[in-house]
Amino acid sequence: MQTISDTIKVEKVKTSKIDKVDFNNLAFGKVLADHMMVCDYKNGAWETPKIVPYQPITLDPSAKIFHYGQSVFEGMKAYKDADNKVWLFRPLENQKRINISCKRLAIPEIPEDYFMEGLKALLKVDHKWIPTAEGSSLYIRPFVFASGNGFHASPADEYKFIIACAPSGSYFAGKVKVLIEEKYSRSANGGVGFAKAGGNYAGQFYPTQLAVEKGYNQVIWTDDNTHEYIEEAGAMNIFIRINDTLLTSPTSDRILDGITRKSLIEIAKDENIKVEVRPITVKEVIEASKNGSLKEMFGAGTAAVISPISTFGHKDQDYDLPELENSYASILKKRITDIQYNKAEDKFGWRYQVSI
Amino acid sequence: MQTISDTIKVEKVKTSKIDKVDFNNLAFGKVLADHMMVCDYKNGAWETPKIVPYQPITLDPSAKIFHYGQSVFEGMKAYKDADNKVWLFRPLENQKRINISCKRLAIPEIPEDYFMEGLKALLKVDHKWIPTAEGSSLYIRPFVFASGNGFHASPADEYKFIIACAPSGSYFAGKVKVLIEEKYSRSANGGVGFAKAGGNYAGQFYPTQLAVEKGYNQVIWTDDNTHEYIEEAGAMNIFIRINDTLLTSPTSDRILDGITRKSLIEIAKDENIKVEVRPITVKEVIEASKNGSLKEMFGAGTAAVISPISTFGHKDQDYDLPELENSYASILKKRITDIQYNKAEDKFGWRYQVSI
Repeated sequence: MQTISDTIKVEKVKTSKIDKVDFNNLAFGKVLADHMMVCDYKNGAWETPKIVPYQPITLDPSAKIFHYGQSVFEGMKAYKDADNKVWLFRPLENQKRINISCKRLAIPEIPEDYFMEGLKALLKVDHKWIPTAEGSSLYIRPFVFASGNGFHASPADEYKFIIACAPSGSYFAGKVKVLIEEKYSRSANGGVGFAKAGGNYAGQFYPTQLAVEKGYNQVIWTDDNTHEYIEEAGAMNIFIRINDTLLTSPTSDRILDGITRKSLIEIAKDENIKVEVRPITVKEVIEASKNGSLKEMFGAGTAAVISPISTFGHKDQDYDLPELENSYASILKKRITDIQYNKAEDKFGWRYQVSI
Repeated sequence: MQTISDTIKVEKVKTSKIDKVDFNNLAFGKVLADHMMVCDYKNGAWETPKIVPYQPITLDPSAKIFHYGQSVFEGMKAYKDADNKVWLFRPLENQKRINISCKRLAIPEIPEDYFMEGLKALLKVDHKWIPTAEGSSLYIRPFVFASGNGFHASPADEYKFIIACAPSGSYFAGKVKVLIEEKYSRSANGGVGFAKAGGNYAGQFYPTQLAVEKGYNQVIWTDDNTHEYIEEAGAMNIFIRINDTLLTSPTSDRILDGITRKSLIEIAKDENIKVEVRPITVKEVIEASKNGSLKEMFGAGTAAVISPISTFGHKDQDYDLPELENSYASILKKRITDIQYNKAEDKFGWRYQVSI
């Protein structure tokens, strides 16, 4: 039987631009690999994915992406091990989540094999773009947007699903200082906060700018109704260690079901760390900071992996986190990245090899 | 002194496509006029607007509009009167609001005269596209989006501000049946609901599809915390008449400050209609329907002007509105459209003539 992978057409670049790239000085998501996967939705169906040279997209000014923010995306990474084998980390979770996001944004769901087979075909032509330096990887960005035209505020009739890749260094440099938000919000009950919808991110830029002006790197979002509960950091889920217990907020229709988040919960349990997934109040975190039981806070996400937080601010007051030897953040980061880079046993079955 | 209008370059189409358009069968926002205004933000500043033939836009696949929904828009109309004079309706309100939206979405604000002078220059070349049939107008769509590149979830360094025009008939045909939402939400406290942000619209598509499957045309959004308060209809603000009092919800950070909404409030007061701007509960509307004091419900917005609601649904029950002679909806619609089309005195000073 013919599978979708047999029908994916590959058009290669005439000249690779890889030699012009300084792989020792990679910013995050700025340099793009030679090719991209493109899959169009037209006439009520997703067409066969194809691999083409990375190239500009041309759209009518009335394309709905410009007007109604109908878009979703995913973030993934490809890793190369010492034997030049290529690995993905739980890619089927991204495949599943992009369709959860698509559904909420009224975008037609992508056939399962189009996602994985399209991605594998792309990595086959661009695997040389996977950097090998410590902490580097090929950041993979699957995204879907409304390319159909018309000013009527309704779902588009055409979409583009694209996968592009950017060899990348670390997302954050060093420890981060966060502000617990008490005015602005990221998401509503019954809204799209659980989806990786484009508009969720733009809405965070201004409050984040205000926090940056006050000397913070990121905002920790709280519930929009009371601002008393810790939610997530927008590009990361949040973990908080009080004494020896690791806390993280439950996912909901406001909070993204992060793949790094759920992997860390499993690794922590495997390390016999007590994990509690439950609503966390701002008040208990401040009290824990004051009485010395607050040991760690860190963000977790694909781009940043684990970002230890050095300080959190709330209502014009800063609270410093202690510097710890053998922090949970460092233990968990080593465990997860060792799995990702094929440096350790993968007892969870999360690694996914891509043949190149 | 040279003004911005002297420096706007105009590149006209070689051949107009106006003769191919059936002005008697116009859908909403499907046919685009010959030209568009384009204004680019680069190197930290908005460049001089220019008028060019309506044409496709070419962007890098990493342009932030595709990933982070960083976009805002406005909706306006140009009207032609019996003497072929061209009018706008309160355009300075749109100019002000687009910058309120820009600020919340971390988009650099547009210089005031760029908006109005760019729009006037565009109407000068495309005024023949303003339809004259009853209820028709030239729908004007100013929009701004992030055209700068990079996968980092932060504001773009380049933007495009475009104005495009579409000769259009009515937005809704006939009376609408609405569903009062009790699960999904449009906006959060401290969110971007008050802004005309692209992402606000995409988030409504799926719940609206579910409502359409149940036989409704539109969703009436309620507050995300309790779903007990009426907010807006997403593309329209909502007015409710109980006995002889006209109610509408106060604007907030969740509800758009609609220009049609605030104009209707002033016209209603001028008609000696009692207007109350206050939170409206779903409960009081249902009770009013049951005891016969609920007389009218209608949506108000630029695209639809006034859309009378024939039925609202809530928790699997439908409530019909009575058919009224001399409804407030019909009185107010006549008053506002007579001002817009220069058929009546404009005691409020809302009409704005554009010389062509």
